[in-house]
Amino acid sequence: MNALLSPQELEARLRAIGDARYHNKHPFHKLMNAGKLTKAQLKAWALNRYYYQAMIPVKDAVILSRMEQADLRRIWRQRILDHDGDSDDKGGIARWIALTDGLGLDRSFVTSGKGILPATRFAVDAYVNFVRVKPMLEAIASSLTEMFSPKTIGERVSGMLANYDFLDAKILAYFEKRLTQAPRDADFALDYVKQHAKTPEQQQAVQDALTFKCDVLWAQLDALHHAYVSPGLPPPGAYVP
Amino acid sequence: MNALLSPQELEARLRAIGDARYHNKHPFHKLMNAGKLTKAQLKAWALNRYYYQAMIPVKDAVILSRMEQADLRRIWRQRILDHDGDSDDKGGIARWIALTDGLGLDRSFVTSGKGILPATRFAVDAYVNFVRVKPMLEAIASSLTEMFSPKTIGERVSGMLANYDFLDAKILAYFEKRLTQAPRDADFALDYVKQHAKTPEQQQAVQDALTFKCDVLWAQLDALHHAYVSPGLPPPGAYVP
Repeated sequence: MNALLSPQELEARLRAIGDARYHNKHPFHKLMNAGKLTKAQLKAWALNRYYYQAMIPVKDAVILSRMEQADLRRIWRQRILDHDGDSDDKGGIARWIALTDGLGLDRSFVTSGKGILPATRFAVDAYVNFVRVKPMLEAIASSLTEMFSPKTIGERVSGMLANYDFLDAKILAYFEKRLTQAPRDADFALDYVKQHAKTPEQQQAVQDALTFKCDVLWAQLDALHHAYVSPGLPPPGAYVP
Repeated sequence: MNALLSPQELEARLRAIGDARYHNKHPFHKLMNAGKLTKAQLKAWALNRYYYQAMIPVKDAVILSRMEQADLRRIWRQRILDHDGDSDDKGGIARWIALTDGLGLDRSFVTSGKGILPATRFAVDAYVNFVRVKPMLEAIASSLTEMFSPKTIGERVSGMLANYDFLDAKILAYFEKRLTQAPRDADFALDYVKQHAKTPEQQQAVQDALTFKCDVLWAQLDALHHAYVSPGLPPPGAYVP
């Protein structure tokens, strides 16, 4: 069996998983940030990722519903407030819709979820189901991809603003907000798993949960790449830009 | 709202879904049947589809666990017997392992599920979850892809025997057995949904369930095609032939 890691060693293992598997390494994101995607391909990406965004507060509500301590719930609920906001035109989901609006997608089509790739739905639903059935430690660990997102967002926003003249800072407001939200969330989750993963088995489970979540993100880009880049074969019923 | 269909009209709608969406239309299967896949690509396919095969009796056990009538359970349990057999060397899963053996895959690697594409796992698990949470009518309807499998198997086996000299009838025994099992199962499920879908809403739900299942199968081939055919980029951690 594995040896028990120090909290610092565990953190280093988690960062190594991000280095190897976080979706900033995916060819689709590399094309996107370099300005090499068409507007049609960006539309397909934003449409599909809307489903992910829309399910994040559902995922967090599942975790919240399994937290038996008020102090934990008080911290975790902030994620739901951030995404849902106080009205339909505020919060993370609203900021994502500003992006799909800016790309010219019909809002009711976007929010209907029709036209997304089945693989998007399967991956996102796998994530929601993961936090429903796994131990709390692993449910929290699966959010740790947020450790890697600020750096990626920085690259993305500058790349997209430089390369796509139909995008502006207002349309990309979602990402700027995440630059402050994600580190706060990631710091809490990282401290939590470093403190609560007390056996080699739990430390391995934490790493596996982060790997699983990287797979969830990567699989969404694989499906987009297959359907809209190469070979460019959307499955039956999926959005055709 | 839709009009109520006759049972015959409902059956025609279901057959039309198969004509448009069943995975025999997928480029990966066309390449396979035409002998245009490499042995390495066939290995990736057999490895990934093992996970689907292995979860089918789990899926059927979920359905069985939700059937409150003994007469229904007596019929449905046969699916589990068919797949699990009476020992590790009998039944549908064992016949699938004969195929992975025949292709030279390590048996313990295959059964571990390590190396499969995350998209395979997400799609298959979505199927198991579907029958866990949906009304029984839809859970049964999602099995109706078996209406289309005998014709496809016929094309596949003859194509594969003609085109791949490392395959023989013994290695492909899984498929021959399904030629008699699938129609028996499909006949029951089709009669069931024709009899129990009594409202336009239920008839639509039955069609949606079959569409969902076609998506589950199609998404698995999309992921294989992306990872192993074009562009041929297996995600991090996945099997590299």
